[in-house]
Amino acid sequence: MGLLIVLSGPAGVGKGTVCTALRERMPELVYSVSATTRQPRQGEVDGINYFFKTRAQFQEMIAHDALLEYAEYVGNYYGTPRDFVKETLASGKDVILEIEVQGALKVKEKFPEAIFVFLLPPSLEELKQRITGRGTETMETINTRMNVAVEEMSLLQHYDYAVMNDEIDAACDRIRSIVIAEHCRRERFVPYVTGMKDAIEKA
Amino acid sequence: MGLLIVLSGPAGVGKGTVCTALRERMPELVYSVSATTRQPRQGEVDGINYFFKTRAQFQEMIAHDALLEYAEYVGNYYGTPRDFVKETLASGKDVILEIEVQGALKVKEKFPEAIFVFLLPPSLEELKQRITGRGTETMETINTRMNVAVEEMSLLQHYDYAVMNDEIDAACDRIRSIVIAEHCRRERFVPYVTGMKDAIEKA
Repeated sequence: MGLLIVLSGPAGVGKGTVCTALRERMPELVYSVSATTRQPRQGEVDGINYFFKTRAQFQEMIAHDALLEYAEYVGNYYGTPRDFVKETLASGKDVILEIEVQGALKVKEKFPEAIFVFLLPPSLEELKQRITGRGTETMETINTRMNVAVEEMSLLQHYDYAVMNDEIDAACDRIRSIVIAEHCRRERFVPYVTGMKDAIEKA
Repeated sequence: MGLLIVLSGPAGVGKGTVCTALRERMPELVYSVSATTRQPRQGEVDGINYFFKTRAQFQEMIAHDALLEYAEYVGNYYGTPRDFVKETLASGKDVILEIEVQGALKVKEKFPEAIFVFLLPPSLEELKQRITGRGTETMETINTRMNVAVEEMSLLQHYDYAVMNDEIDAACDRIRSIVIAEHCRRERFVPYVTGMKDAIEKA
């Protein structure tokens, strides 16, 4: 069985950037594909970028508990199809799911055996800089976003690991290490050792 | 606080070889120095290769619970001084301790917060080949050793991680990943996040 790795963290911490870098560094990971009711953009391919669904189809998925989590943004649904994740894991591959903190908590309810990784900013100053972005926001907006981000950081308690996003290579190396270490958990090797004992007793 | 990593596994699995390779690949780890009552050999330095002790000194260490574990082999005591480990961890450095399985279980009693890593042979055939060694052993000796090794493998249940020693680079990379992942455990970052919350609330 593969592992489901849920990568989350506060708004502005750089989840997307880290995930894009991970795609290059860990091509063996399968990236979870979201379902959405929004229209495909130029070049987007169904089943690769998103699973494109009608509103009726999406609501049927909700009714059949076919989503690990979902949310509605500006009139469109977005969600994580359970079957895609389950089937990929059953094929022995690891799946990574990049998601905001509220979605991650919903995934935890339905899939507690996943590995929950929380991305942290290296400092408040750095977070503020990332949230400020192009400098077009008012002080009030920036302060509100900072408060939200720090509030979201309290959700760290529901996660297994924290990864400091101080430097992209270091952050990716930490995530890669977490995946390798989780594959080394003792429980995964009990059948292997039992098999060896049986073989030598029969010999 | 640094982490204590206990590397163990059945006789013949290649603990020493992996540990020697790790010294090159992870020079940031501090290797635990054993205390012993045996005579120093040519070139061995007190405090580097071993802490050389008289029998009376060693017995005093036992009486004062100054050893994480100890054992007697062919008339000499060998043990792991608790102070060296504790002081190195307190300085923020990780300590690695390579030890046979019985010693590892004793360390676990006195230091349950250590990370216990079990080295596994890639197959029974490979283990037999390593145990057979130079080919000077009788079939009976080899069979006894195989039975002991497989019995020792049942102790895997007391460990946190299992590392397959199929290839030295891969085994070292797994151990390195375990150390990095353990440093990413959520609990270690709670003070960091609490500090950020306090700072933004004061601002």
